[in-house]
Amino acid sequence: MINLEKIRNKNLPLTKNGHVASYIPALARVKADQLGIVIYDLDSNQLQSVGQSQVRFAIESISKVITLLYAIKQRGFEEVNSRVNTRQSGFAFNSILNLEIEHEKKPLNPFINAGAIMTTSLIKPQDNLTPFEQILAFAQEICHDPELSLDEEIFYSEDETGDVDRSLAYYLKAHMMIQDNVTDSLRTYFKQCSMKVTATSLANLGAVLANDGIKPWDNERIISSQAATFVKSLMMTTGLYNESGVYSARMGLPTKSGVGGGLMSAAPHKCGIGVFSPPLDKDGNSVAGLSVLNELSDELNLDIFK
Amino acid sequence: MINLEKIRNKNLPLTKNGHVASYIPALARVKADQLGIVIYDLDSNQLQSVGQSQVRFAIESISKVITLLYAIKQRGFEEVNSRVNTRQSGFAFNSILNLEIEHEKKPLNPFINAGAIMTTSLIKPQDNLTPFEQILAFAQEICHDPELSLDEEIFYSEDETGDVDRSLAYYLKAHMMIQDNVTDSLRTYFKQCSMKVTATSLANLGAVLANDGIKPWDNERIISSQAATFVKSLMMTTGLYNESGVYSARMGLPTKSGVGGGLMSAAPHKCGIGVFSPPLDKDGNSVAGLSVLNELSDELNLDIFK
Amino acid sequence: MINLEKIRNKNLPLTKNGHVASYIPALARVKADQLGIVIYDLDSNQLQSVGQSQVRFAIESISKVITLLYAIKQRGFEEVNSRVNTRQSGFAFNSILNLEIEHEKKPLNPFINAGAIMTTSLIKPQDNLTPFEQILAFAQEICHDPELSLDEEIFYSEDETGDVDRSLAYYLKAHMMIQDNVTDSLRTYFKQCSMKVTATSLANLGAVLANDGIKPWDNERIISSQAATFVKSLMMTTGLYNESGVYSARMGLPTKSGVGGGLMSAAPHKCGIGVFSPPLDKDGNSVAGLSVLNELSDELNLDIFK
Amino acid sequence: MINLEKIRNKNLPLTKNGHVASYIPALARVKADQLGIVIYDLDSNQLQSVGQSQVRFAIESISKVITLLYAIKQRGFEEVNSRVNTRQSGFAFNSILNLEIEHEKKPLNPFINAGAIMTTSLIKPQDNLTPFEQILAFAQEICHDPELSLDEEIFYSEDETGDVDRSLAYYLKAHMMIQDNVTDSLRTYFKQCSMKVTATSLANLGAVLANDGIKPWDNERIISSQAATFVKSLMMTTGLYNESGVYSARMGLPTKSGVGGGLMSAAPHKCGIGVFSPPLDKDGNSVAGLSVLNELSDELNLDIFK
Repeated sequence: MINLEKIRNKNLPLTKNGHVASYIPALARVKADQLGIVIYDLDSNQLQSVGQSQVRFAIESISKVITLLYAIKQRGFEEVNSRVNTRQSGFAFNSILNLEIEHEKKPLNPFINAGAIMTTSLIKPQDNLTPFEQILAFAQEICHDPELSLDEEIFYSEDETGDVDRSLAYYLKAHMMIQDNVTDSLRTYFKQCSMKVTATSLANLGAVLANDGIKPWDNERIISSQAATFVKSLMMTTGLYNESGVYSARMGLPTKSGVGGGLMSAAPHKCGIGVFSPPLDKDGNSVAGLSVLNELSDELNLDIFK
Repeated sequence: MINLEKIRNKNLPLTKNGHVASYIPALARVKADQLGIVIYDLDSNQLQSVGQSQVRFAIESISKVITLLYAIKQRGFEEVNSRVNTRQSGFAFNSILNLEIEHEKKPLNPFINAGAIMTTSLIKPQDNLTPFEQILAFAQEICHDPELSLDEEIFYSEDETGDVDRSLAYYLKAHMMIQDNVTDSLRTYFKQCSMKVTATSLANLGAVLANDGIKPWDNERIISSQAATFVKSLMMTTGLYNESGVYSARMGLPTKSGVGGGLMSAAPHKCGIGVFSPPLDKDGNSVAGLSVLNELSDELNLDIFK
Repeated sequence: MINLEKIRNKNLPLTKNGHVASYIPALARVKADQLGIVIYDLDSNQLQSVGQSQVRFAIESISKVITLLYAIKQRGFEEVNSRVNTRQSGFAFNSILNLEIEHEKKPLNPFINAGAIMTTSLIKPQDNLTPFEQILAFAQEICHDPELSLDEEIFYSEDETGDVDRSLAYYLKAHMMIQDNVTDSLRTYFKQCSMKVTATSLANLGAVLANDGIKPWDNERIISSQAATFVKSLMMTTGLYNESGVYSARMGLPTKSGVGGGLMSAAPHKCGIGVFSPPLDKDGNSVAGLSVLNELSDELNLDIFK
Repeated sequence: MINLEKIRNKNLPLTKNGHVASYIPALARVKADQLGIVIYDLDSNQLQSVGQSQVRFAIESISKVITLLYAIKQRGFEEVNSRVNTRQSGFAFNSILNLEIEHEKKPLNPFINAGAIMTTSLIKPQDNLTPFEQILAFAQEICHDPELSLDEEIFYSEDETGDVDRSLAYYLKAHMMIQDNVTDSLRTYFKQCSMKVTATSLANLGAVLANDGIKPWDNERIISSQAATFVKSLMMTTGLYNESGVYSARMGLPTKSGVGGGLMSAAPHKCGIGVFSPPLDKDGNSVAGLSVLNELSDELNLDIFK
């Protein structure tokens, strides 16, 4: 068994090298020197954790994984694939450049903001549940976290400051990529980003993806094998935004980050990993978190290209 | 053992759906209805082949893998990494957009033309051998193909028509990314693209990569484990140009293509694959070849995200 | 005196070479074979007109001239200049590329949509009048056209289909260029585009600009000399969108176009010109209208570079 | 008569606000605190000058005006117009972005480097004279300056450091815009930029343009009226690169700048102006020179939009 305490001690000082997200108050006031690490090992079917493993924080962009999985579940693989591409953008997560320069007919992938809003817009009301209510229920189940819930203050702030996302959404609408009501989709999108999770919830999510779509804690399939494989590929090629290629070459571990300081990885057939450490590098990824993942990839031999 | 004959028969008609590269005469006159498939299985340490497995064709962009591996061998991993990035470009293989828009200090990756020329420029004369002589010798060894050689006619044509590459090279020079003589580097680059290989050579190359850098035919290490891992990651994220993300999600198999109709894949610890079929899709990838790889990935369970 | 009838007869057939704007019903059903030409000659202080000189049509982008002049009047030259630039964009009127690629802090000019929305947003409620009420009153006065009014149906359609403009406006808001309520500014902007004018109103507007800001019909100054000069320069460098440089070189006549089929020119100290002819070329400029202006520039020696 | 001495004294201190071009030694060692102003008044047919009016300096980009005029003379207006556009680029003078993003078939205008190299490439050997020999002879005549000659050291340096221009030229060649030998055209281009002129030569050139193509000193036509008009329009819309729109709105005076510190203006029917002052602003235009032109435009009422 790996010595997580040692890895945590070594990497905790790195929290000084980044900056906590500050575009909204609820993120800005998060304590910086936190580092929580949780590994869900599929072999032993056990969780191993250290540090702030139960502290709740905003899921932010990691919610894009959940919404994508749920959209595939509700609308089917083909439908989702026909509406959003799986290419890299070459630009920042909130850029419109590539869409306009290349006259794209689909957002480039579900993890840049344009593609994520698109994906969210695909989810329809069902069984008297709004899209967000469905996403929340699905998130609770796939993260094995019944406490996972919406933080109203964060949602309010995300909505208040989300003008770039509104700009992207109206661009999609103008070019017929989104047909539905943009305001509703944005509301759902801002809500999904405002769910509060723990490093443990993320390790559970990673474990489902690593376990081919089957929840290891009850051995029930929650998503198709195809969806689990597809999403792991996307996490590798675009999960860390514009730096995805860099980390693919460095640690070879499908990973998705969020500006709340979370990181979620899935090492096929081996383990799911959740990390929480708020200070971010200039690309919006957790500094200490990425360093931890790098070490775990080396020590546990998780690089899938190796 | 997989029935390659059946797969070939099923996919041969797809050669009608693409167009043989026509920008130079030597490529334009290649017979279209060819399909050669070779698998180097690491378990049995055996080659299995069907169709045009011994027909020679121009290696073109697949040479970028060889040059990158050789540059790492000669100059070291750190030096190469400090001069060329591992990110996706979001644009065509011969585009300069991303470099200029983002004011990049390094070409985005070694498989777009700018990055490939950069990589080639890193190789220095050594032991009285020119850079190209070294590349050729290394290619013969890593492809287990002593007949692998330069096609002078193709080289002449590549040089004759290579104005976009010249434009990229002078851009790199102007921005201090290349310090050396541009004309020499371009000459070496055009030569490396003009080497003639077979689907068998490519299967051998793939097998070395799949085998962690050790030639399976003689059990000797030719490249470091780190280099083999690094290059497989790059093949996944940028090996099929702008469509890399699409194929990563579809077949999860590290692959590099060339406009000569070749495809080379490396499935870690499982096998190397070489395919040859000249007609290309609009992105410059072999139509029948990609379809064959897709099937092989499914049937042999090669998707590394699965 | 110039023979306008002859010029009209010669150019009327050109209405067959373009397409009436069709993105909203009220524009799509406008009769194509119309051509109205009006010249306000400053020497004789007389209007000369031919054809559909009194037919009302949507002012569309020509309203940007009016709003810019009014913003300068209300907020001052310095304030307006500090918020919107006077450069060319190199892209289409509704593109965001240049803003994002160059990290611009100001929209490039007041005649591309981003800059026009920005300019409209500068106008504040005053004397119990909304921004649009002020713009309308100013438009009636500077066009010498008390009948000039809002077309509610067009406004409704512009609002309905204005998603690209919404996208641009939220981009400006997100980057702190617009501080105010975006919804209000967009509403005002869509209204200003939906005012109905005639070729005669436009000739009057052109005459004021040509006459250094003094209404020639009553000899009263309505805008400063500085504003009149400034706006004529902008009409020359960006008045015909991306084709401005082409027509500057061809006819040297400060001109602004609108997709309603209107064209308004101002030849300093000589005359104002209004043309109406609905069929547009691919850049959104009236085909017959531009041809008429070209001829008038030659025959009346209006090229200011000559 | 205007008091040039007073204007010079007022603006000379501005030479402290810029930086002399330093990319080549011959430019870097030019004395900074110089300001020469020359006006060729068409009314009086007299030159008025002050300061460094006879100091020789590198013409650099102002040569683009001369080459364009000569290309029109040799190849005809239609031919030149069919090969290079008259639009603004929205980017820096040495950018390729717009060409590639918009898939342009022609360089955007003759004053950005791509278009200037294109224009130079149109000039053919004639009467046993190389293109450059013809350009030089034409420059001597239109500038009324028989001493105007090539500076070999500057040419050598321009050639040595001209990799961005080489990159642009090969891009044009690759996209079939230039058909001829790129090396020859670049050589001619670097030479034309390396001619040495004085503020007086530039005032003479401006006077020919202002005088509709007729040399005012001997009353002989050297270029067509059409060419003179065309070039003045281009100087207005693109003569100061990306800042052209800004100065068009500010001073309304067709002007071309060079990084040697020269500025040449043509006020139709009024005067030609040459200014020399080496320190440049960040856009590569002479700081004191632009300020002088601004004042002259005001005091002599030269704004053509007024």
